[in-house]
Amino acid sequence: MKMARAAKRSAVPEVATRDQLLIAAGELMIESGNVDISLSDIALKTGLNSALVKYYFGNKAGLLMALIRKVVGGSLARLDEVIATRASPEEKLKMHITGIVNTYYRFPYINRLLHFVITERGGSQGATMAAEIVKPLALSQKQILDEGVASGRFRKVDPMLFYFHIIGACDQLFYGRYILQHGFGIDDISATLKHDYVNHLYEIIVNGLLAPPNHRTAKSTRANRG
Amino acid sequence: MKMARAAKRSAVPEVATRDQLLIAAGELMIESGNVDISLSDIALKTGLNSALVKYYFGNKAGLLMALIRKVVGGSLARLDEVIATRASPEEKLKMHITGIVNTYYRFPYINRLLHFVITERGGSQGATMAAEIVKPLALSQKQILDEGVASGRFRKVDPMLFYFHIIGACDQLFYGRYILQHGFGIDDISATLKHDYVNHLYEIIVNGLLAPPNHRTAKSTRANRG
Repeated sequence: MKMARAAKRSAVPEVATRDQLLIAAGELMIESGNVDISLSDIALKTGLNSALVKYYFGNKAGLLMALIRKVVGGSLARLDEVIATRASPEEKLKMHITGIVNTYYRFPYINRLLHFVITERGGSQGATMAAEIVKPLALSQKQILDEGVASGRFRKVDPMLFYFHIIGACDQLFYGRYILQHGFGIDDISATLKHDYVNHLYEIIVNGLLAPPNHRTAKSTRANRG
Repeated sequence: MKMARAAKRSAVPEVATRDQLLIAAGELMIESGNVDISLSDIALKTGLNSALVKYYFGNKAGLLMALIRKVVGGSLARLDEVIATRASPEEKLKMHITGIVNTYYRFPYINRLLHFVITERGGSQGATMAAEIVKPLALSQKQILDEGVASGRFRKVDPMLFYFHIIGACDQLFYGRYILQHGFGIDDISATLKHDYVNHLYEIIVNGLLAPPNHRTAKSTRANRG
């Protein structure tokens, strides 16, 4: 085991060691259900000295930010590609929801990690992560909504409220693994369940955006009762 | 300060001491942004001996469960009352979303606390809290959905997926206080913002439930392109 690890280490370039640390950090978050992992746990899991974290990332906050960039960076780039296509706003919305749910499916800790890093006091990481992750994501969503309104198919909604709605809804199924287990008797999130959740969210949200005013019957019901 | 505290303590009955511990625990969670608070922090904040936690709640897990019951118990009872009324399914949905958002507004830690207690390994709290909180809530939501379908106004959706959608969406704005600050430049959640969020969620979700099949244009768009 020790020999195999040494051989592996000598054969891989620096970038792989860096990645090893990030992969181990993510795995630890999944195993422990906690994003506040320790450097010594990473060292134990990888067989690498925790001083390497300092070498590659400066400190633990640097490692956590690098993990967020690694996980979310690709998704944001793909979302940009989606928006640049000539697909309809509805299709873009579907691809966006699919993309977020897929990310949370593979990396169920990522929303909590983002909150953890952004909440951290006395540092600049909050502003940095917001600028790199939250703002571009919110801007892309706004573009989809604007296209929908411009095409006359979506009604106008507040993009910021839409951001919290989408992120919270997409995340909760994956955050809620133990709630799924104890509350609903489901041990694992299958590809089918993930697929069903995408469709559920998409159908509600797109119809919620498309719906013409005359479907807002609660208001008229209230008026009838008033 | 010490005298005032002693006077206060001697003047209040047992139930108030118990409540003092719960209130302090909740306040600490808001202040620290972390639900995993320590008994010594509670002792420090209340001026009460941390042994009282053992006396009233058995252990820290017992205190956390009592806090969840205190916060959510009233909301669940009010939801039962709402369901028992003759309001329309749409109105019940609106009252339900309003109730959850109000709870998260006052107790922004409560969803994370519920997850923390349910995720805790090697105990029975997960099953207990699921039975007391998650299952009754999911059942109430299912009743609203069933009434909507029976009345011919809602289309049929999976109540479990609906649960995660509603809970995640309602919670995220309050979980995301620092994201709100760094990502959107908003420091505090005002009553207006809370009210706007309820309306945003309600409009999307009720229209998503009400919408007839011919509004699901993404499918037809895909078909046209295929």
